[in-house]
Amino acid sequence: MTTATDNTIRETVERQARAARAAATQLQRTSAAQRDAALQAMAEALHTHEAQILAANRRDIEAARADGTRESLIDRLMLDSDRLSACADALRDLAALDDVLGEVLDERTIAQGIALREVRVPLGVVGMIYEARPNVTCDAAGIGIKTGNAILLRGGSMARESNDALVAVIQDALVAQGLPRECVQAVDATDRASATAMMGMRGLIDLLIPRGGAGLIASVVENSKVPVIETGTGNCHVYIEKSADLVMAHAIVLNAKCQRPSVCNAAESLLIDRAIADEVLADIVPALAEAGVTLAVDPEFLDTAPCRHNRSVRAATDEDYATEYLDLEMSIKIVDDVDEAVAHINEYGTQHSEAIVTQSDEAAQAFVEGVDAAAVYVNASTRFTDGALFGLGAEIGISTQKMHARGPFALKALTSTKFICTGSGQIRE
Amino acid sequence: MTTATDNTIRETVERQARAARAAATQLQRTSAAQRDAALQAMAEALHTHEAQILAANRRDIEAARADGTRESLIDRLMLDSDRLSACADALRDLAALDDVLGEVLDERTIAQGIALREVRVPLGVVGMIYEARPNVTCDAAGIGIKTGNAILLRGGSMARESNDALVAVIQDALVAQGLPRECVQAVDATDRASATAMMGMRGLIDLLIPRGGAGLIASVVENSKVPVIETGTGNCHVYIEKSADLVMAHAIVLNAKCQRPSVCNAAESLLIDRAIADEVLADIVPALAEAGVTLAVDPEFLDTAPCRHNRSVRAATDEDYATEYLDLEMSIKIVDDVDEAVAHINEYGTQHSEAIVTQSDEAAQAFVEGVDAAAVYVNASTRFTDGALFGLGAEIGISTQKMHARGPFALKALTSTKFICTGSGQIRE
Repeated sequence: MTTATDNTIRETVERQARAARAAATQLQRTSAAQRDAALQAMAEALHTHEAQILAANRRDIEAARADGTRESLIDRLMLDSDRLSACADALRDLAALDDVLGEVLDERTIAQGIALREVRVPLGVVGMIYEARPNVTCDAAGIGIKTGNAILLRGGSMARESNDALVAVIQDALVAQGLPRECVQAVDATDRASATAMMGMRGLIDLLIPRGGAGLIASVVENSKVPVIETGTGNCHVYIEKSADLVMAHAIVLNAKCQRPSVCNAAESLLIDRAIADEVLADIVPALAEAGVTLAVDPEFLDTAPCRHNRSVRAATDEDYATEYLDLEMSIKIVDDVDEAVAHINEYGTQHSEAIVTQSDEAAQAFVEGVDAAAVYVNASTRFTDGALFGLGAEIGISTQKMHARGPFALKALTSTKFICTGSGQIRE
Repeated sequence: MTTATDNTIRETVERQARAARAAATQLQRTSAAQRDAALQAMAEALHTHEAQILAANRRDIEAARADGTRESLIDRLMLDSDRLSACADALRDLAALDDVLGEVLDERTIAQGIALREVRVPLGVVGMIYEARPNVTCDAAGIGIKTGNAILLRGGSMARESNDALVAVIQDALVAQGLPRECVQAVDATDRASATAMMGMRGLIDLLIPRGGAGLIASVVENSKVPVIETGTGNCHVYIEKSADLVMAHAIVLNAKCQRPSVCNAAESLLIDRAIADEVLADIVPALAEAGVTLAVDPEFLDTAPCRHNRSVRAATDEDYATEYLDLEMSIKIVDDVDEAVAHINEYGTQHSEAIVTQSDEAAQAFVEGVDAAAVYVNASTRFTDGALFGLGAEIGISTQKMHARGPFALKALTSTKFICTGSGQIRE
């Protein structure tokens, strides 16, 4: 139900979005040097106003503790001198990166001598919807200024005093550098209606980026009329093909599952060719169990020696095959061949990162061509899917959609293009 | 309300979409030579089965006439030997274009010697929702095969016999070339529920392209959960800045408005600097009226000599400024300067094609940087926004969105990218 309060919030957000559009028009006329100077000034201001920011953060933390928030969340909310310095350093790093705007993607002379250039331009207004961590506020504001986009920040309600303090400090720094205050704005964080309002503002907001848990991302993807870059979910597989080097396969599976199980490029499911299933299970099941991994195993193989009477093993369901555990848990499915592996991955995967271990060029090619994912690996761990490791500069996220940006994406994903045609009076005949 | 029939239709469309995904997996493993041979075979099959296709088309036309359909629509529905030959030629032209798949966009060695390549791949399954013209069926099927995408075609109900006949002929040609029949499928055209079902199939359909009138496009953009490339609406402006060469301005305005008023890159609104308003109105109002153009003029200037007692002139409203007439009708607004022109265009325009006529480099730069549109023109008619004129090859449409594809777009817009990482057992430390 839409209430009177919802309408008030929607009107406020719309006013902010319109102010952001006006600011964006000014921002996109600035030079890279001006935007980089603004980033440096923002970094400096975080130091200068540290006391004020940390005081606001303490108020958030006290309120969260009073609400009985668990300490792991409090830790994500918490700012201190070191964390604020890290935010400032991240802004300085952004200032040091090459500018992405103005790049000429195409240049040619068309009909009757019109000079055509296709150039990279800012998107305009970018909205960010995120959860507790206040460092995202600095990060997103910095990415916006670097790419010439005005930014609307809708953080979590728990961090609202911290975010308001950070945004006020950033805005003052922008104004001192001759940029409009409205380049960076905090949107009401106390009510769900503000996020809903942002999702409805097609035409006023050019892109929404949700950052946070799977629930938040799914809700934005499902409800937004504004274009979204979908990030986050990684139901990633390692497939051991029958020709695989099994020592290599062992190392890759353990690394992909256990090195950091809570991240999106960790493996969640293991596929094994039937021809080598007994041998691989005898090796990998005890090793994963030893590493603390709970296993949901293809029911057909539950009764084999390594699985029978193993307290770490249970029967896998279709739901297991579809689950991103983000924990020390893994499903195992036996397949006939690479075609069945590809079909299983395309059915249950989330188009994030998928690996095959094989010595067969033919199998590798069938996998690489057949699997529909942002990143496919031959004989390497899925854990390498990362903007920094891929050499992209400041990673904003890892897109699991196919349009506009796929896989790890960076500053260029916050840009569009414009055809500029310069003539001398040409008309079409 | 969802009825039992709706559910049956939805289930059928879902089955077709799943079959399309399976076909897409096979299609993306084909070579460019195989796909081009399939396009040639499709073209040949249109000739071989001409009698059968034209008979189906005659049944559609008879049914449409019996329903009292007006002749201009009947003409769009009608196929004859020449039109079918044109469809076949378009398929042969597609076959002759360079392949867009497999292009290596990035190639480097990353962590511990992993070879990374970013390559261009098909999107997977593309849905097309369109209206009466059966040539779109051939065109879309061809574009799909060329780019390695399976295509779901939801044409207008009036053309359903024609489309079913065309798709049957195309499918037989594909099968004879060793490609799956399900690469090209016609979706039920008798019920709105099939289009609604397609719009809900995020994850099964990768992209929806609506082709047709503004109502169809708006409905798809508004309701689709599947990503859409928004096309079509062009509320385009010509702005005469105070330093303009008025002879050039006259020619550009007449061309942009009158040369072909029914197309999206025709101008709908004229902006004139206040300093030259009287002089320009005295010249342009009679010229446009003479050309049969009805004018909605800034109320402040209604009482000036060229407008007073002029039967072609009425007062402009905000609705006029927001309207894409697609006809011999134009709004005229007087502005103070380039900043007001930019603000007006960014408020009322549809981010399609926008032109300034000026002798001032400074004004041109402010306009080009400030106007948020796919194509901006300095001293040329808006009518040049066109994929062929821009040198892009087969144009699919003109995108008025900023994500993925902006402005005239061609085959590359039906592709995504994939990172392929080839290692020798690398794990992340």
